[in-house]
Amino acid sequence: MRTPVAPVTITRVEGGRGAQAEDILVTEEPLEIRLGHGPLEDRREVRLSVTMRTPGHDEELALGFLTTEGLVDGPAQVLRVEPCANVKEEERGNVVRAELHPNVALDPTRWQRNFYTTSSCGVCGKSSIEAVHARCARPVAPWGPIDAAVLTALPDRMRTAQTVFRHTGGIHAAALFDRAGALLLLREDVGRHNAVDKVIGAALRDGIALDRCQLLVSGRAGFELVQKCVVAGIPLMAAVGAPSSLAVALARANGLSLVGFLRDGRFNIYAEP
Amino acid sequence: MRTPVAPVTITRVEGGRGAQAEDILVTEEPLEIRLGHGPLEDRREVRLSVTMRTPGHDEELALGFLTTEGLVDGPAQVLRVEPCANVKEEERGNVVRAELHPNVALDPTRWQRNFYTTSSCGVCGKSSIEAVHARCARPVAPWGPIDAAVLTALPDRMRTAQTVFRHTGGIHAAALFDRAGALLLLREDVGRHNAVDKVIGAALRDGIALDRCQLLVSGRAGFELVQKCVVAGIPLMAAVGAPSSLAVALARANGLSLVGFLRDGRFNIYAEP
Repeated sequence: MRTPVAPVTITRVEGGRGAQAEDILVTEEPLEIRLGHGPLEDRREVRLSVTMRTPGHDEELALGFLTTEGLVDGPAQVLRVEPCANVKEEERGNVVRAELHPNVALDPTRWQRNFYTTSSCGVCGKSSIEAVHARCARPVAPWGPIDAAVLTALPDRMRTAQTVFRHTGGIHAAALFDRAGALLLLREDVGRHNAVDKVIGAALRDGIALDRCQLLVSGRAGFELVQKCVVAGIPLMAAVGAPSSLAVALARANGLSLVGFLRDGRFNIYAEP
Repeated sequence: MRTPVAPVTITRVEGGRGAQAEDILVTEEPLEIRLGHGPLEDRREVRLSVTMRTPGHDEELALGFLTTEGLVDGPAQVLRVEPCANVKEEERGNVVRAELHPNVALDPTRWQRNFYTTSSCGVCGKSSIEAVHARCARPVAPWGPIDAAVLTALPDRMRTAQTVFRHTGGIHAAALFDRAGALLLLREDVGRHNAVDKVIGAALRDGIALDRCQLLVSGRAGFELVQKCVVAGIPLMAAVGAPSSLAVALARANGLSLVGFLRDGRFNIYAEP
């Protein structure tokens, strides 16, 4: 069993003086996602990707990853996700396999992580945005007016629910809230994109309607995170930190409401359809 | 000419009231790195990778990336890095080409970004560490005793030198200091790994001896950043934020001194050979 935190003995230095102390680290380990595909009588397997992640909720991570990276159009295309048992002892717990529905044809051009890097699209902001657009199953449903009282209450709710951060101070969080601001799901991970994939994967598995949710992330809002929201159909994304230029452009091009610097009762609206 | 920041009109909300305001965003755009290789009379080109980065110092980014990802053993193997002129208008400024020395044989198994993801190595922390070790040209030279007075002065020096963060609040920094704590180089980027690659690439180009430098990063210390230090031969890495379990294990296995939570005159030593 792999755990999300790990103890370590360190030297703590303060006022120039060092002392031995016990500390707790966030665990970082590779996760390999394999994909089973093809007709049931002749299944094939591909090794899709390896990501450095914090162990836990790996099946959700795989389901979210497959969806937000555009490899499947929704959870109905994935029969199940399970840990792989037929791996070496030291790899146990670090490999999962997702079974595609036999009717789903696997498109090899979709394999590459960060699909804006495929050679078919140009290397500029505009084509990066177009590549995301092409992978969306449906347009994002507009969120409508932003309720400042609801939004400014979210960061405290997320922080209160964060358990790993409290111990390690070293982890990203992504939290899904309903329109009224009630916390639906929270996931933490050493990688910000993993935290978002885990929370989206869990919502898909549980049948939560993502088009009526708002997502809060603990860090900054870069292109990749906004991309995941757009593809998953989440209409409002808020970040505690700053957005990037391309994140704002992508949000505006896709009708996503994008909020940044959400803290201390204030925020900036960067995109509002 | 692509710029590291971009203006945007936003709605700033405070005390429940919104007002139009001008804001400045950090620019995020794709950069494609191409590699020219083979004998001079029969040059070949491969498209190596696309990374989302903040424009500026792209040649340093490419040189640092090639080195820290283990594709070349040092700057002597790279003849030059130049912007590509023969690209579409909208891609101009987003493509660079690095020319390998004709004597350097390009190993296709080294192409994949994050080489611990190649299928040859197992999917566990131990094999991730071994994969990094196999790519190191030489062991890291031990830093020796840590001078607390020097170390605790570094964050302020880095922050003072950060220009893009001051405008946007949305960028990672990596800074190289000598043993006495003098700032040698600072680079900022929307991607933390890019900031580290840029500062390492600039040092390699300028002939700065990395084995006598300490590196400070503005965020957390994950596996990937420690990997870059180890491969580049930087003996001390300090982070303002927390390290991960695998980052500490990798540092300890390779004789790298690793410091975390360096702020407010305090820090933790996670690895000290």
